Amino acid sequence: MNDILERLSQVLEERKQADPNGSYVAGLYAKGLDAILKKIGEEAAETLLAAKDGIPDKIVHEVADLWFHTLVLLAQQGLGPDAVLAELGRRFGLSGLEEKARRRG
Amino acid sequence: MNDILERLSQVLEERKQADPNGSYVAGLYAKGLDAILKKIGEEAAETLLAAKDGIPDKIVHEVADLWFHTLVLLAQQGLGPDAVLAELGRRFGLSGLEEKARRRG
Amino acid sequence: MNDILERLSQVLEERKQADPNGSYVAGLYAKGLDAILKKIGEEAAETLLAAKDGIPDKIVHEVADLWFHTLVLLAQQGLGPDAVLAELGRRFGLSGLEEKARRRG
Amino acid sequence: MNDILERLSQVLEERKQADPNGSYVAGLYAKGLDAILKKIGEEAAETLLAAKDGIPDKIVHEVADLWFHTLVLLAQQGLGPDAVLAELGRRFGLSGLEEKARRRG
Repeated sequence: MNDILERLSQVLEERKQADPNGSYVAGLYAKGLDAILKKIGEEAAETLLAAKDGIPDKIVHEVADLWFHTLVLLAQQGLGPDAVLAELGRRFGLSGLEEKARRRG
Repeated sequence: MNDILERLSQVLEERKQADPNGSYVAGLYAKGLDAILKKIGEEAAETLLAAKDGIPDKIVHEVADLWFHTLVLLAQQGLGPDAVLAELGRRFGLSGLEEKARRRG
Repeated sequence: MNDILERLSQVLEERKQADPNGSYVAGLYAKGLDAILKKIGEEAAETLLAAKDGIPDKIVHEVADLWFHTLVLLAQQGLGPDAVLAELGRRFGLSGLEEKARRRG
Repeated sequence: MNDILERLSQVLEERKQADPNGSYVAGLYAKGLDAILKKIGEEAAETLLAAKDGIPDKIVHEVADLWFHTLVLLAQQGLGPDAVLAELGRRFGLSGLEEKARRRG
């Protein structure tokens, strides 16, 4: 389970060579950054709606959509999930996630 | 690296017993679902702004914030990252992530 | 110019009787609240992207889209722009918009 | 009622000369574009949550907040509500709001 993000990240990297007409992700890359960001905005909104409905399957589905499109953003920017996990680990393990988050208000 | 989400999920579970005045996450739980969802909305907006600025560190930071608050949502709903990773794996491994995503337009 | 919102509100009211297949707004009503709210989420995201690009025409276009879909929401809920304008006027004229807003942080 | 947006727009213009420490709007101008856009993202999220709760007063309140911060954005960009109302009128009166909207999907 733990390497899903990494494997998915590899697939997203490979899709940079794919036909934009034959691959949803390649199509997003071709449309460019704004198209990816609009999807992140959409999926965040859908996560809110699913959570207000309180239906677990729907919440999981929408959070998966949201994470997926942030992974597409990371790939498009030449980044990967490792950088995000490292950032979360840094807050969590060293200076403390709680402390960091509290300072942010 | 791979078990960061799982470990973070355990911390978020433990925070359910923490003092809302002493822990950012316990404070969010105490405020309730809407407070968590507002943070998800905020962090999604900040992800868009960071990506438009094209500053890698900022993008990683905002995506980490966004993932973090979706993990808080999952924990608050009695769910965890495993369910989301399994959903991503299902799309990725079986019928294919691409096909699923393409049907969604 | 000043009665545009009112006239638009009347059109949105009339669309409640229209064929969902022949009218975009009637189609949104038929799909229900979540469909309208997803559009508000989308248009808010597009407003952010347009503003980051700093192109005046695009900003005006996206804010118009955002206002339009909030008007559809109001109509669907049996409300209208007058209630929103009255709320803005109340903050502006009486206790003062500034004071109200400052308290909200 | 109809000139509220115009009057509010004038107030927002005047706030460009105000002390950022004494005025919420002047404070937003001083923080810059991203601060305004974050508020638009926040208020859009809060509109979604209010609408899912189905409480009319709360919906009106959040839509007022959302419109207010889009007016701040317009002012900060040297634009005003007239441009947005004209855009809505153009769609509504000439080529038809419905037709325009339908093309956008």
